[in-house]
Amino acid sequence: VLERLRAARPGRLHVVDPYKIPVAEAVEKARAVAALEFPVLLVGSTDYESFDAHVPGYVAAIKEAVEIPVVLHFPPRPGAGFPVAPNADAVLFTAVLNSGSEYYVWKSYLDTLNTLNRRGIAPEAAPEFVFAGGMTFGADAVSRAAVDARAVEETRPALAEMATVLRTMRYDLAYLYSRSERVPDDVCRYLRESSAPGQLLFVSGGVRSRQEVEAYHAAGADYVVFGGALERPDWREVLDRLV
Amino acid sequence: VLERLRAARPGRLHVVDPYKIPVAEAVEKARAVAALEFPVLLVGSTDYESFDAHVPGYVAAIKEAVEIPVVLHFPPRPGAGFPVAPNADAVLFTAVLNSGSEYYVWKSYLDTLNTLNRRGIAPEAAPEFVFAGGMTFGADAVSRAAVDARAVEETRPALAEMATVLRTMRYDLAYLYSRSERVPDDVCRYLRESSAPGQLLFVSGGVRSRQEVEAYHAAGADYVVFGGALERPDWREVLDRLV
Repeated sequence: VLERLRAARPGRLHVVDPYKIPVAEAVEKARAVAALEFPVLLVGSTDYESFDAHVPGYVAAIKEAVEIPVVLHFPPRPGAGFPVAPNADAVLFTAVLNSGSEYYVWKSYLDTLNTLNRRGIAPEAAPEFVFAGGMTFGADAVSRAAVDARAVEETRPALAEMATVLRTMRYDLAYLYSRSERVPDDVCRYLRESSAPGQLLFVSGGVRSRQEVEAYHAAGADYVVFGGALERPDWREVLDRLV
Repeated sequence: VLERLRAARPGRLHVVDPYKIPVAEAVEKARAVAALEFPVLLVGSTDYESFDAHVPGYVAAIKEAVEIPVVLHFPPRPGAGFPVAPNADAVLFTAVLNSGSEYYVWKSYLDTLNTLNRRGIAPEAAPEFVFAGGMTFGADAVSRAAVDARAVEETRPALAEMATVLRTMRYDLAYLYSRSERVPDDVCRYLRESSAPGQLLFVSGGVRSRQEVEAYHAAGADYVVFGGALERPDWREVLDRLV
């Protein structure tokens, strides 16, 4: 999955929320984005419950219908780590660099491995792990509640610290997100310039127009991710406009 | 172990090399440092072979004779992670922040958990994990070969980057080491000032005199670690002088 993401950049990605979008609609969206050569489909949600009863079946239905790889993007929970559907192609292990808790920064990784092992899922049988250094911008009570994220200040020193950690920890990608506002183009540009060669840059949050997508690409984003933009009946037209 | 280290600081620690020091001598040294109220005994070596055949028995002999907790300090190896003797009290998981390889920075952690699981050692039965952000100073071909460590520049910007990573990743302690030279007092002082409250600061490498120990303590080190200083027949006198 990581190789595929590297090869297909720059591009766009869609994240479908399995707790909001009926599976039949998710399948249609998977078909639509595959036809547009999106390299993967993200399946994710900040909130989730009964994950094991719901998500593997949801992933299976998508994978039966469409060839596009499915990448899970959920926050971890103490005692369990990142939730894993064994039939997904990859799981984003997001290190929330601006979390107030070491758990969400990285200790969740250990939890996840212990859980996989308890479940008898050998490393070679698990989905691919893609390691992301995540950071959130703007007020965001939901991310604060989920992963203790505190908005990164949009100042040069604060961003330089994030970039240092990204480079030092060699995360596969940086995931910039703003729930309530918009990741500034300048932030994107700065992190592009200060990340290491090979590190991918994802930008997400509130993307609704093709102009925004193009502006992020111009600022160095490898992938512009949109979810909510397609959560409406006329999503096909919106998707057309976005690409 | 971490609580014990926090409670007993500032102090000194001895690291005994199980590949250099006969076990009977290690037991004598464990007794001697326990009598001096050193909170733990480190057992470690950059090089090791036949770890499972040698180290658990070595640890067992020490633990039969002395109550002092034993903490392992070895570099990880790809495919296995950090070597673990299940009877040790704790294992230092050192993230070599100045390594050229992501493996030695942190991915070895994942390897270690997979190995423990393959060995059937449940997380609750494993030794305590103590997470260290490690960095090396001065020319050091041995550390370069073992963990791809490249000397940290002794400049403010380079140290500031190390401090940022230490704080962000919330490592339990920082481990500063110089094999060939000496960690400068200024480096120690800077990292003390820029680390997070609660993070311990260990300094090691070439410590031979009580003046050096005191200078490091004055510069904010919580623990001054010495190994080679006691690798001589008159180690009891040297230990007396050091404390």
